[in-house]
Amino acid sequence: MARRGMMKLGMSMRGLGYHPAAWRHPEVPADGTLRFDHYAHNAQMAERGLFDMIFFADGIGLRERDEPRGSLARSGYELVEMEPLTLLPALAVLTKNIGLVTTASTTYNEPYHVARKFATLDLISGGRAGWNIVTSWSEAEAKNFNREEHLDYDTRYERAAEFVEVVKGLWDCWEPDSLVYDKEGGLFYDERRMHLLNHRGKHFQVRGPLNVAGMPQGRPVLVQAGASEPGREIAAATADVVYAAADSLQAAKTYYDDVKGRMAKHGRDWDDLKIMPGVRTIVAATRAEAQAKFDRLQDLTDPLVGLARVYAALGDLTGFDIDGPVPEPQREAEVRSSTERIMQRARSQNLTIRQLYKQIVGGGFYLIGTASDVVDGLQEWYEAEACDGFNILPPYLPGCCDDFVEFITPELQRRGLFRKAYEGRTLRENLGLKPHVNRHAEERARSAAAE
Amino acid sequence: MARRGMMKLGMSMRGLGYHPAAWRHPEVPADGTLRFDHYAHNAQMAERGLFDMIFFADGIGLRERDEPRGSLARSGYELVEMEPLTLLPALAVLTKNIGLVTTASTTYNEPYHVARKFATLDLISGGRAGWNIVTSWSEAEAKNFNREEHLDYDTRYERAAEFVEVVKGLWDCWEPDSLVYDKEGGLFYDERRMHLLNHRGKHFQVRGPLNVAGMPQGRPVLVQAGASEPGREIAAATADVVYAAADSLQAAKTYYDDVKGRMAKHGRDWDDLKIMPGVRTIVAATRAEAQAKFDRLQDLTDPLVGLARVYAALGDLTGFDIDGPVPEPQREAEVRSSTERIMQRARSQNLTIRQLYKQIVGGGFYLIGTASDVVDGLQEWYEAEACDGFNILPPYLPGCCDDFVEFITPELQRRGLFRKAYEGRTLRENLGLKPHVNRHAEERARSAAAE
Repeated sequence: MARRGMMKLGMSMRGLGYHPAAWRHPEVPADGTLRFDHYAHNAQMAERGLFDMIFFADGIGLRERDEPRGSLARSGYELVEMEPLTLLPALAVLTKNIGLVTTASTTYNEPYHVARKFATLDLISGGRAGWNIVTSWSEAEAKNFNREEHLDYDTRYERAAEFVEVVKGLWDCWEPDSLVYDKEGGLFYDERRMHLLNHRGKHFQVRGPLNVAGMPQGRPVLVQAGASEPGREIAAATADVVYAAADSLQAAKTYYDDVKGRMAKHGRDWDDLKIMPGVRTIVAATRAEAQAKFDRLQDLTDPLVGLARVYAALGDLTGFDIDGPVPEPQREAEVRSSTERIMQRARSQNLTIRQLYKQIVGGGFYLIGTASDVVDGLQEWYEAEACDGFNILPPYLPGCCDDFVEFITPELQRRGLFRKAYEGRTLRENLGLKPHVNRHAEERARSAAAE
Repeated sequence: MARRGMMKLGMSMRGLGYHPAAWRHPEVPADGTLRFDHYAHNAQMAERGLFDMIFFADGIGLRERDEPRGSLARSGYELVEMEPLTLLPALAVLTKNIGLVTTASTTYNEPYHVARKFATLDLISGGRAGWNIVTSWSEAEAKNFNREEHLDYDTRYERAAEFVEVVKGLWDCWEPDSLVYDKEGGLFYDERRMHLLNHRGKHFQVRGPLNVAGMPQGRPVLVQAGASEPGREIAAATADVVYAAADSLQAAKTYYDDVKGRMAKHGRDWDDLKIMPGVRTIVAATRAEAQAKFDRLQDLTDPLVGLARVYAALGDLTGFDIDGPVPEPQREAEVRSSTERIMQRARSQNLTIRQLYKQIVGGGFYLIGTASDVVDGLQEWYEAEACDGFNILPPYLPGCCDDFVEFITPELQRRGLFRKAYEGRTLRENLGLKPHVNRHAEERARSAAAE
């Protein structure tokens, strides 16, 4: 069954890749997250591969937990890295077409700052900015922002919803033709087309206007995760892109139909939202070689880092033989819901401790094989309409990004599943999204039509 | 009298220049503040002129006051522009040696964000980041950040002092040799050389560590204004650079000696701080041409924009003949201290309204003339030890930046007052500042010496 249109692709570029042992890989620059050339290479490679966008996940703190003792110092993962909203403008200069998307938290930011920064990124990049809207839920982050504990779920989401409304409102303060630059007449802007926001809500009071205007996209692209019930509703109502989880084709299809099905009641078309599950790809000339690449990465996982991944569920297992059977949960174990799930898995598959943590460390939706194998997997999901494309989570960088562009992109193109050149100038255009319409300009047009 | 060493120079690049009529100048791109190529040209030109740094002042709101009615829309000044901390990383890519300095407010930011962003800028630029520390005092800004009124002076300064201490602490969390990247042994960092901050103060509780490390400068350069009594003390204690006001040579000399004289008691040397007053330069082949350039700019000042500059002191003068005498202050006038000063000036010089506002709009320390004239002025201040260099405030851009580099820089070099090539790799090195010493590394060295 052929599906109309082409799939969309994002390259998630956080750190040194998504496998916790990536930093120990011989071809990975362990200091890459502090080197601009590392990021520049990956971004330029993703653009050579015609990716719709690069994406940076982000956190504003180091993981609180360092258990078992010493595991954090061995993890090399999400420890020190460049702040993405400062990094993306620099990458904008070295690229021309690829979208530039980053996470920014609604929990420990102010909407005026976020609106300004993404508006500026949109200007610098000629219309390629995207904002991944998240809330911050970790204690490690709370403790960097004057709190002992993170905000509860309801407060976080309530604040996030209001935060996004304020940012959108700030982006619309200046109508597209508000800046007239009439040197002769001495008029810089048309007062009738500049609008104060005057937002007065529960979490924010923001007068406006924003002191940035003229974004090429009108509004940067809005990205969300949206797995929960309220998250799905918000995504259906407002998101341009959703980074979805990918547990199985059937689950992805169910999620896709559910979220897309909610859009009509918000006055949105099926195509106004792109759903892109995350997938980890490892490709080589043969299946055996690809599997060997994966196994090598798995073998680089430090035992302490592996044990840290089961600490919350099973407690401290450092006293046990890691090549022996998984013991009963230890006293320090905290999270009871995952405990039973993990123990069941260990028992039913008769796993050693090492086998158990390797399953977890190497978990997620992996496609491992030849270019043809990987594209088979992507194509199956795409043609089943379980997604609109994929957010690639490279296990290690730059290798898995380079390999994707060299081997997988051409195969996708050969099968007519992916573009051979960028269609548009902005991220919004490449994603096939409608142009943003300024709310005040729209209202004016409506009033004029009614007269 | 010759003075040892060379003067330091900064180029203030905010907007379209420092004269409010700049946007109407025929050679100025009125939409430049929203165009990356405008900023890129100026930054590259300043680097060609071997400037120590470019600098962006910043505000996080539009001026509250739009009086008399309609004046704001005619001002074209500090209205819409790129957010500098998002802009500078992009400019870092297009330059190699010049320092990149911007304002960030301590009043409506969080130290963790500020520390991360400047650390990232320092990494991207190879050690060229600088932070101009300010507090936000305007109602316009308060109203964009959930407040009706700005914080009072004491609270602002107390918060600012704590903010800066937290940021410095976050920058020192990782000792220079803390990241060991030992792939073989599986150790990413040395736990003994990573330090939590655990700051618990009145305004901030910040645990740390920062999730950025390895800045080439160790610590970005710290810039302040520091005119008030407490401001002078803080500058003497901690600043690397001070942007000073320049009322007269005598006043500048007094300020210079005062601030430098306070440094010894903080254990700092005379040269550890660079004091750089702001100066506006207009240069041409002859004095008459230079004066004509200035007059032309003055003549472009819209009367409403001029009247806005005297509104607070004198009230609404729109009903009066602007070429008639300055009338008594109107009812709306608010700021009584400046009222009397301005009225005295108007009376003593027998000024018309137009002459009065032109004096104010064209006020500040101007050097207008041939390259030789301008350099005479700069040299006089420098050799009198009234400053360590200057922060150039170009009346309009790119013209006044271009002209400086083309005409004034060579004359400064000819007289041995300014470098002919960058001395160092980082801003800190070019400014002739000592390397930053990490507090924990220093402590460790002290302990080792004591044993």
